[in-house]
Amino acid sequence: MDVIELSKGLDTIWVVLTAAMILLMEGGFALLEAGFVRQKNAVSIIMKVFVDIAFGALVFYFIGFAFMYGKDAGGIIGTTGFLMNGDLSHIQLNISHETYWLFQCAFVIAVISIVSGAVAERINFRAYILLTIAMTGIIYPLAGHWVWSGSGFIGKLGMIDFAGSAVIHALGGFSALAAAIFIGPRIGKFMADGKVNIVPPSNLPLASVGAFILWFGWFGFNAGSTLSATNTAIGHIAVTTMLSAAAGGATCILFTMFRYKKADPPMVINGSLAGLVGITAGCAFVSDGAAIGIGAVCGIAMVLVTEWLERKQIDDPVGAFAVHGISGSLGTLAVGLFAMPELTEGIGKGYYGLFYGGGWNLLGAQAIGLVIVSAWGFAITWGVLWLIRKIIPVRVSKDEELVGLDVGIHGVPAYSQEHDFLDVDKLKSN
Amino acid sequence: MDVIELSKGLDTIWVVLTAAMILLMEGGFALLEAGFVRQKNAVSIIMKVFVDIAFGALVFYFIGFAFMYGKDAGGIIGTTGFLMNGDLSHIQLNISHETYWLFQCAFVIAVISIVSGAVAERINFRAYILLTIAMTGIIYPLAGHWVWSGSGFIGKLGMIDFAGSAVIHALGGFSALAAAIFIGPRIGKFMADGKVNIVPPSNLPLASVGAFILWFGWFGFNAGSTLSATNTAIGHIAVTTMLSAAAGGATCILFTMFRYKKADPPMVINGSLAGLVGITAGCAFVSDGAAIGIGAVCGIAMVLVTEWLERKQIDDPVGAFAVHGISGSLGTLAVGLFAMPELTEGIGKGYYGLFYGGGWNLLGAQAIGLVIVSAWGFAITWGVLWLIRKIIPVRVSKDEELVGLDVGIHGVPAYSQEHDFLDVDKLKSN
Amino acid sequence: MDVIELSKGLDTIWVVLTAAMILLMEGGFALLEAGFVRQKNAVSIIMKVFVDIAFGALVFYFIGFAFMYGKDAGGIIGTTGFLMNGDLSHIQLNISHETYWLFQCAFVIAVISIVSGAVAERINFRAYILLTIAMTGIIYPLAGHWVWSGSGFIGKLGMIDFAGSAVIHALGGFSALAAAIFIGPRIGKFMADGKVNIVPPSNLPLASVGAFILWFGWFGFNAGSTLSATNTAIGHIAVTTMLSAAAGGATCILFTMFRYKKADPPMVINGSLAGLVGITAGCAFVSDGAAIGIGAVCGIAMVLVTEWLERKQIDDPVGAFAVHGISGSLGTLAVGLFAMPELTEGIGKGYYGLFYGGGWNLLGAQAIGLVIVSAWGFAITWGVLWLIRKIIPVRVSKDEELVGLDVGIHGVPAYSQEHDFLDVDKLKSN
Repeated sequence: MDVIELSKGLDTIWVVLTAAMILLMEGGFALLEAGFVRQKNAVSIIMKVFVDIAFGALVFYFIGFAFMYGKDAGGIIGTTGFLMNGDLSHIQLNISHETYWLFQCAFVIAVISIVSGAVAERINFRAYILLTIAMTGIIYPLAGHWVWSGSGFIGKLGMIDFAGSAVIHALGGFSALAAAIFIGPRIGKFMADGKVNIVPPSNLPLASVGAFILWFGWFGFNAGSTLSATNTAIGHIAVTTMLSAAAGGATCILFTMFRYKKADPPMVINGSLAGLVGITAGCAFVSDGAAIGIGAVCGIAMVLVTEWLERKQIDDPVGAFAVHGISGSLGTLAVGLFAMPELTEGIGKGYYGLFYGGGWNLLGAQAIGLVIVSAWGFAITWGVLWLIRKIIPVRVSKDEELVGLDVGIHGVPAYSQEHDFLDVDKLKSN
Repeated sequence: MDVIELSKGLDTIWVVLTAAMILLMEGGFALLEAGFVRQKNAVSIIMKVFVDIAFGALVFYFIGFAFMYGKDAGGIIGTTGFLMNGDLSHIQLNISHETYWLFQCAFVIAVISIVSGAVAERINFRAYILLTIAMTGIIYPLAGHWVWSGSGFIGKLGMIDFAGSAVIHALGGFSALAAAIFIGPRIGKFMADGKVNIVPPSNLPLASVGAFILWFGWFGFNAGSTLSATNTAIGHIAVTTMLSAAAGGATCILFTMFRYKKADPPMVINGSLAGLVGITAGCAFVSDGAAIGIGAVCGIAMVLVTEWLERKQIDDPVGAFAVHGISGSLGTLAVGLFAMPELTEGIGKGYYGLFYGGGWNLLGAQAIGLVIVSAWGFAITWGVLWLIRKIIPVRVSKDEELVGLDVGIHGVPAYSQEHDFLDVDKLKSN
Repeated sequence: MDVIELSKGLDTIWVVLTAAMILLMEGGFALLEAGFVRQKNAVSIIMKVFVDIAFGALVFYFIGFAFMYGKDAGGIIGTTGFLMNGDLSHIQLNISHETYWLFQCAFVIAVISIVSGAVAERINFRAYILLTIAMTGIIYPLAGHWVWSGSGFIGKLGMIDFAGSAVIHALGGFSALAAAIFIGPRIGKFMADGKVNIVPPSNLPLASVGAFILWFGWFGFNAGSTLSATNTAIGHIAVTTMLSAAAGGATCILFTMFRYKKADPPMVINGSLAGLVGITAGCAFVSDGAAIGIGAVCGIAMVLVTEWLERKQIDDPVGAFAVHGISGSLGTLAVGLFAMPELTEGIGKGYYGLFYGGGWNLLGAQAIGLVIVSAWGFAITWGVLWLIRKIIPVRVSKDEELVGLDVGIHGVPAYSQEHDFLDVDKLKSN
């Protein structure tokens, strides 16, 4: 037993445990989304989360990882590492390539799970599978390559995004926005005369617990992104993550008490998540105070953007764009303002934000990177859905939507209070 | 890479991971409490858990930590470390001060979450925010300073409380008792003629899973309190934690089968938690056998005290006092009986309980410390609520209570079976 | 602080954290089973999970561990270590015996939790407690001794089972099958004319989240089974676990879309679990590709066996046998085909499967070991239930079954929409 071996073991368990925490976030997404949608679609949204994790992992294994972290071609795309084979010698880490893959796999699954909420209650299941394949095989891996591979053209511009406010959340959020617009609002959400109809979430306790599970997983998401347990930034990352989430939640409690005369539960839930999304880029680079500010701003912005989307008649059932797209964007830009790398020696060395003497360079790089990633997410998602529509419908039939996707598509309701067994023949004759 | 660096990294990830586990316990509290209360108040209790974690973290960051672990003044209060600034050089750990803060922050949030259950279904939301600020800013930090800071007057008396049966659970439990009495019982719980009405919990599966999540988090709570991964007590702590919880659960299964002729689900859930609370003080100091005994006694005591509270017409909807106040007290005293420090070299050195040759010294210190902490928790909570009542009502209106706090205060029901959208204008005209 | 100390600390926290993850799987089992059964039995199945964890831990502490890992007698049974006392010097690990016990305890609780699902909705609660004691005290410890103790007769035949496809899942699954047959189908499940009645699961969102929690815990289950954080196989184990689960889920999505014209939610949930069960034996020995294949085969087999059981009129409400018995068997055999030990130096050295030049030796050992373990699980469970029936009924009364076990046995419904309190006297007079 020597120090090298210990160090490898320590880093390996750190990455495996945090990857497992991130994967548990799928349970969080499932609860959050099932709780926010109408009861008749609660299972169908969870089935999409199963698609995310099952198809996402396999597609990322077959091709996604290679496009993202394989040997670089032109700063645009990776070219080796399909099925984790081929030359990956340029990836020099203290953990094995497989361990690295697992952590990255947990990330890609999170991205597509963001999109699933925005298309809830109306997307065709088979179309969703194809969208998942595109997202986890190409859309996210390319964006990730540009920013995180070390050879990508955005990273070379000087953009930094520690755990992915841009690469994960802005990308996922703008992809979600494109999908929500492309597919159109749910029947009955917006009236011809401009009235907006609402539905109380089907199960707020479930949604709340989803948020707590996501919060837990976020410690893995942000702190685990060090990929090394001896990185001295870990404590700081965990603290900024906590403070920003708390600020997002507390701000939304107070802001909705002021604005709506009540602490609005769905907004409080999403406010905490907005704080978590916002700090994801800067958790290693910004001060505690900045983290609190980022969380607070993201919380309020999330409320206002949610209202704005409704006015624009864009139907995003769980608030995916307001939470991930907006807070991800704000968090990415905040790094350009608040980065103060001496906080965490060794990470982000030399990157100073506008308020700490870095001038406009970093902020500019953040803004350019953000625009590219967001535009890519929006445009390519639109394009992929357009292509899918050439083959199969992207939306369920009107009848299926009205009866609900659970019974309409998956043949089973989410909740049943049946006391006794059902007679199959009788069921069939219905 | 050297041994020092590895050791710091190892301790850091241990504390960060266990802190995350403790924070996940908020999800456990949310499920437990939402499952135990009536359906019409399930969201309102979860909103209080969001207040706990969001306001609790910020207040503890701004002032609580400083009062608890800042430079000591007179054995009573800390005076430095507001916003984690100022002189904290007296805190000498193998982890950073920030990492230490995160772990302590997870603790303070647990304390206030204990109180939330006792005031469920009737407390005014704004009053609860103020109570949370008081608890996380002053009430708990002071008690924590007295016992755990190394300079506090109770710690100097010779009291030991490894992970907080007294400082967390007895304090929280007696605070919960004060709040439950101060606010009074829910309308309809007790009849004028002395009859006690009951309500079946709204969602026992949720409550059960809350208990399993709490159980999971408790390994972080107790074993993480070593603050060091190389502490040789970790394995023993985890085992006593497991055995005491199992004994609490098994005892309540058998005891309620004997007493009520049925294994009573809410009692079994709370019995496991009682075992966990009871072992929290002694997990590092007592033998496996003592752990089983502590769990068993706490389980039975919880059942009897729950009955006693009902007879006294004190309304504690989720059993916060019976679980945390009583088991916390018993666990604190049990250390005075069963402490056997050679079990875990390096922790609690020299502290022997009555049954292991230590005489009455330790037991006396435990009893005195417990009385002070409990009385403080009860009295100051009463005082704070009394002050709050000078400004705003501490209780919701009768109408709000009858309609339920979810719709009455937060404007949304916990569960909705609405199949279609609601017309906003129609809603408004209601 | 030296390297030895660090190494012990590192291994200890690895095992404690993964044990906690496995114990959280009880929350997963509780959700999964409560979601799959009818609403009137949702609490009763969760109470069985409490029996599993509470009685299971104590019985395994008192006798189970000694029978499993105590000093060997004749390759059949351990004879020391009752209450963790006596000579355990033959267990040479880098972690303490207590830490080792905790990890093994988490395993035994998983085994009995497998059985609980198969007897759901009709077993007598007291009979279940006795069955739990037999399972955790004797049935599983003996099988575990034979395969895993290092001295057992099956292990000496050359069988390998890394984290327990055979010892945990095939044993639990065949025990579940015996119990399901012994106790008989639920009233109304099968009609005299051969018709099969179905009931939609009471709460699919809960069941789904149960699966995600189990998935999370499985990383602890498989990777934690190294018992050492510096084991270089950890990354590979985690990746094969992930890939097999994803393959099981994805396959069931596609297969049920093809077979039933809909992605069937309960099958997708169980398909992911089947993939996890199937890879449990081979996670450290097989390639990524083999892991994907194992998951896919287990997923499809689970669907077909579920259908077959229905045709045979065997009533297994949550699919315990199809998931654990069948996938556990397939996974155990797959090791005999795909083992390729150079993947993970140090684990399974010299064990090669049929497809990698090992000939029929390993496959033969796997098959023999599997048959013994499965037959033991089936026969002894049958025998124990037969014995229990001599003392108390193994099945609830017809009235209790029809009204549901929640109200019938435990006196409380799982879900209550009661808005107000209930009058106790009125309740009693009912």
